[in-house]
Amino acid sequence: MIIVLRPEATEEQINHIVEKTAKLGLKANISRGTERTVIGVIGPEDVLRVTPLEVFPGVEQVIPVLAPYRLVSREFKKEDSIVKINPKILIGGKRIHVMAGPCSIESEESMMRLAGIVKKAGATILRGGAFKPRTSPYDFQGLGEEGLKFLAVAGKEHDMATVTEVMDSRDLDLICRYTDILQIGARNMQNFTLLKEVGKLKKPVLLKRGISATIKEWLMSAEYILSQGNYDVIFCERGIRTFETATRNTLDINAIAVVKQKSHLPILVDPSHGTGRWGLVASAAKAAVAAGCDALMIEVHDNPEEALSDGPQSLLPRNFEALMKDLKKVAAAVDRQI
Amino acid sequence: MIIVLRPEATEEQINHIVEKTAKLGLKANISRGTERTVIGVIGPEDVLRVTPLEVFPGVEQVIPVLAPYRLVSREFKKEDSIVKINPKILIGGKRIHVMAGPCSIESEESMMRLAGIVKKAGATILRGGAFKPRTSPYDFQGLGEEGLKFLAVAGKEHDMATVTEVMDSRDLDLICRYTDILQIGARNMQNFTLLKEVGKLKKPVLLKRGISATIKEWLMSAEYILSQGNYDVIFCERGIRTFETATRNTLDINAIAVVKQKSHLPILVDPSHGTGRWGLVASAAKAAVAAGCDALMIEVHDNPEEALSDGPQSLLPRNFEALMKDLKKVAAAVDRQI
Amino acid sequence: MIIVLRPEATEEQINHIVEKTAKLGLKANISRGTERTVIGVIGPEDVLRVTPLEVFPGVEQVIPVLAPYRLVSREFKKEDSIVKINPKILIGGKRIHVMAGPCSIESEESMMRLAGIVKKAGATILRGGAFKPRTSPYDFQGLGEEGLKFLAVAGKEHDMATVTEVMDSRDLDLICRYTDILQIGARNMQNFTLLKEVGKLKKPVLLKRGISATIKEWLMSAEYILSQGNYDVIFCERGIRTFETATRNTLDINAIAVVKQKSHLPILVDPSHGTGRWGLVASAAKAAVAAGCDALMIEVHDNPEEALSDGPQSLLPRNFEALMKDLKKVAAAVDRQI
Amino acid sequence: MIIVLRPEATEEQINHIVEKTAKLGLKANISRGTERTVIGVIGPEDVLRVTPLEVFPGVEQVIPVLAPYRLVSREFKKEDSIVKINPKILIGGKRIHVMAGPCSIESEESMMRLAGIVKKAGATILRGGAFKPRTSPYDFQGLGEEGLKFLAVAGKEHDMATVTEVMDSRDLDLICRYTDILQIGARNMQNFTLLKEVGKLKKPVLLKRGISATIKEWLMSAEYILSQGNYDVIFCERGIRTFETATRNTLDINAIAVVKQKSHLPILVDPSHGTGRWGLVASAAKAAVAAGCDALMIEVHDNPEEALSDGPQSLLPRNFEALMKDLKKVAAAVDRQI
Repeated sequence: MIIVLRPEATEEQINHIVEKTAKLGLKANISRGTERTVIGVIGPEDVLRVTPLEVFPGVEQVIPVLAPYRLVSREFKKEDSIVKINPKILIGGKRIHVMAGPCSIESEESMMRLAGIVKKAGATILRGGAFKPRTSPYDFQGLGEEGLKFLAVAGKEHDMATVTEVMDSRDLDLICRYTDILQIGARNMQNFTLLKEVGKLKKPVLLKRGISATIKEWLMSAEYILSQGNYDVIFCERGIRTFETATRNTLDINAIAVVKQKSHLPILVDPSHGTGRWGLVASAAKAAVAAGCDALMIEVHDNPEEALSDGPQSLLPRNFEALMKDLKKVAAAVDRQI
Repeated sequence: MIIVLRPEATEEQINHIVEKTAKLGLKANISRGTERTVIGVIGPEDVLRVTPLEVFPGVEQVIPVLAPYRLVSREFKKEDSIVKINPKILIGGKRIHVMAGPCSIESEESMMRLAGIVKKAGATILRGGAFKPRTSPYDFQGLGEEGLKFLAVAGKEHDMATVTEVMDSRDLDLICRYTDILQIGARNMQNFTLLKEVGKLKKPVLLKRGISATIKEWLMSAEYILSQGNYDVIFCERGIRTFETATRNTLDINAIAVVKQKSHLPILVDPSHGTGRWGLVASAAKAAVAAGCDALMIEVHDNPEEALSDGPQSLLPRNFEALMKDLKKVAAAVDRQI
Repeated sequence: MIIVLRPEATEEQINHIVEKTAKLGLKANISRGTERTVIGVIGPEDVLRVTPLEVFPGVEQVIPVLAPYRLVSREFKKEDSIVKINPKILIGGKRIHVMAGPCSIESEESMMRLAGIVKKAGATILRGGAFKPRTSPYDFQGLGEEGLKFLAVAGKEHDMATVTEVMDSRDLDLICRYTDILQIGARNMQNFTLLKEVGKLKKPVLLKRGISATIKEWLMSAEYILSQGNYDVIFCERGIRTFETATRNTLDINAIAVVKQKSHLPILVDPSHGTGRWGLVASAAKAAVAAGCDALMIEVHDNPEEALSDGPQSLLPRNFEALMKDLKKVAAAVDRQI
Repeated sequence: MIIVLRPEATEEQINHIVEKTAKLGLKANISRGTERTVIGVIGPEDVLRVTPLEVFPGVEQVIPVLAPYRLVSREFKKEDSIVKINPKILIGGKRIHVMAGPCSIESEESMMRLAGIVKKAGATILRGGAFKPRTSPYDFQGLGEEGLKFLAVAGKEHDMATVTEVMDSRDLDLICRYTDILQIGARNMQNFTLLKEVGKLKKPVLLKRGISATIKEWLMSAEYILSQGNYDVIFCERGIRTFETATRNTLDINAIAVVKQKSHLPILVDPSHGTGRWGLVASAAKAAVAAGCDALMIEVHDNPEEALSDGPQSLLPRNFEALMKDLKKVAAAVDRQI
């Protein structure tokens, strides 16, 4: 941690800071420049983060040097982590897995039909929402447990793993009974009580990036889960909020390489939310694979005119099939496979 | 709702849309221009919102005309709403109430001492966090129930109402026993299950704006609460996330007038989070009062060097006292009082 | 154009609007709903854009229906435009051209050496800045005409076309004498006098997106150039400013497909500025090709420790060569070639 | 400047950096922590800024300690600067001056009439645009020199100083002949050639903040002007671009106090562009005065239905008069006068 002092900082103020850091068991290293004195504090920054050094007299700014996350960092673990969903599905290896299905689970028949469609095209994991976070209280809120059953049955029938969103700690037991992967939605990325709860489980977690979360905050949210003992976390980049309104979100393609540099955990990309319009999904999905993502999640619906949510960003089966063929080629070009 | 068609839209496609809206009980009004045909759909938009018209063949874009919120809107209720905290504290009237106190509740003595300080300076509501949302799992997470007790005792002793943040539905019973106002934090503004739960209670709710929530989304979150029967909602503008890094957040001063135009509910401003640095709080607080806010929430700490959270943005007692004197003058200039 | 009226709008106000539009030669179509009356105005919106209908009494909001650009739009020209730099270099066809070179032109020898390096690796267009827009007045501002000479000589020697940035209308004559493509930098995307000037020339223009320009504004800036008669415009996506600080900019990968839908003009991606860090350039460049870009611009320097600008985002020759090999594979996977 | 090394940095790499800094005449101070080695470089950072230390082997990140601006900083000059427009108009003192007038200069009569209106209400400086930066090439581009004459005549007649925007260096001579203050628009905040040109003049400059410029970049643009010898710069906060679409821009009210802390130069606020809607201007203007601004710029039009630009954000004369009365009261409350 670097403490930059004001030009007018006194010796007394400098000593006050040095004493404080000494009390915390840290060593302070003073550099006196012509314009500023700077104090470098050596040792574990965690101890210091709790101490608001910015308010100490004479201090102009405090600059942290170490990343605030530990367990999720590349320094903690050099090799790529592989999250095992089941013996056949490993996320983070050479194979790029595709999760696909409707935004909301709507009925048993549609779930079963869509599972067949996406499985045939090459998806290995079935998605579908039973508890839906909706901006409006008057919109469809999901089928709840009934929906979970439809998802589980369709997944079993087509030999696919399943993923669904969990919105409330109280639903965790229920959801764990039916699905293989727990999705934490963008709006809950900093629902810290929920993060702690899924951290205590033995289920893989798909952690969506908050709509305006920095990569650092996202890694910190994963740290919440790992710090409770659950290391099976997959990041999900799904677009961030910017000033641009031509798309629903701005897919942060840079985030893939940044996360890969900073963390050992795998990263998935959701081009459906990342663009918000089906006509842009193929371009974004191919870009994500070329950029180095480990998995994809794509919304597919065979009758978007009747979809209960996210119709505008869902691919028709025929478009999904065509995309999967293209993705196989792009994956091969970057030495991966789908 | 306005449906703009593509230049190449066919008669068949137009008929398909008109039939669909007719089935929903709505009337379609077709305008044929030289470059585009436009269909205006007349009637309650709620019915249409569920139908993803964007995916209908021939449709270029769908433009909603009506606001998606009802109960929170000025059209639903023309006069300003006043939220009654207790017989002496009404939020939304001529009197601007100030909530003040430490970020986190740290001990019984400090809570009691700070309550005395802020009460004497003119604050009427005591704030303090017992459950703290922290970016890092390694940071102080709050005293929990013990903290709530300290808050309640200090509030009672100094005849102040109390406000504290609720992070989890499961803590609601507990928190309701100790405090007068339930604060929904920025990170939970779209925690819809929590919103529904507080909507069922008879407690005033302080609804903080999400760090990247549009004003429209913020009003929709309030709609969740009102739609469950609880009309005592106070908005809290606390700064939004932008590209600017000189401040922790960018206080959206425009939001005050916008909310006043669109909604009948009162609005409070939090200049502590809105700036993130104590040296900027006074300027922002005076601006908020001049702009027309109904209440303020300000973090105060008498020993920020030892504060367990948000030290850098907390005012010292002497600065808070000076600010309260200044605020009284600004309030008088805009025909309000503090 | 759709004019949404306030609930309390009077017949007199409605008539006032209808009369105004009639005077402008347009036809108004009135739809009376239960909650709002809506007026659709049919005819060329250009006439109306100049008239601030928002301020007419009774008006709540005005929603434009047509895009404000004409000549750059897909509706104006259905097929992809190809910008011819010289008989061998066509931008917008099957071949993806790569522009490469140093950020600033630093000396004749370095320019010549780097030209040889990037040409050998497969680049066909040589880049280098002679007039540099620098945030600080104390930073290196470019070699000016001398630099242009070095660029021209190196381009000629290695049979490459050349591109350089123009910052001031007064330099246009000079720059045109030495280079093949005129680059308008991000900071000048809305320097409308400069846009008009390059619009009068017969040189291809590379139009960088402003750091916070919407895609619509970017297309409008191109419209300035085309409206003066110069149709040889290439868009350049180079990252936008968002809240994320882990990268210098956020590369808007979605913009490629959006621009392709809305315009017939080709689009180039600059992954060097789009990421700001050399370790992220390869991932972003591959993503751009997979997403469908028509060209790339990449900064290369053989001694970044001594680079006079943008060292941190420049690739070393060996990394550039490796990247070019990878890009050829990705291009082939999406049926293009490099 | 602080150089943070990678965990695996070697002694050789450390020596390489120390030698490089020594060559530049600077002293390096090495702190070896348990997790990272950090090098503090003492001396003028300007020398180092040109050297891309980020690319040196073993370097993880480089953190500047000193602000990159000099002449505009509070450290360079402790007392507030006062910009003298004429003997009666000083910007930066106790008196808050108001600039008012139409967005565009439209005719001699309207300019004269509006000058009389705003003068009577208390404005001392007359504004009006003769060269208009317009997003669309098809929109009204301003009256040019004719407009400047109307502005000058109206200003003289009503004993007001005048301000107008300069878009191109080539127009400077012309504009200087007619007006007292040169406005650099938001789109030209980083038009560095223009900044240098106005820096060589002896005219006060009103420097608008770019729509997505950080406060630091804004100060750097002022540094361009001061570095050429012109110290009469007034900052103009006019709203920034954020994700919020309910307003045209987000007025960054925090910027007032931040600029006051960092710089000695005065700051003006433009609530017309800062909100984009006339119904929000009064709230924002009062907030700006309470927050501590030194001047205001407000668009006024007596027939917004016919305004050639920015009608929706212009105040009617009666609203402007009422606002001026309110502003006097708010100014008095913060010990200023209007």
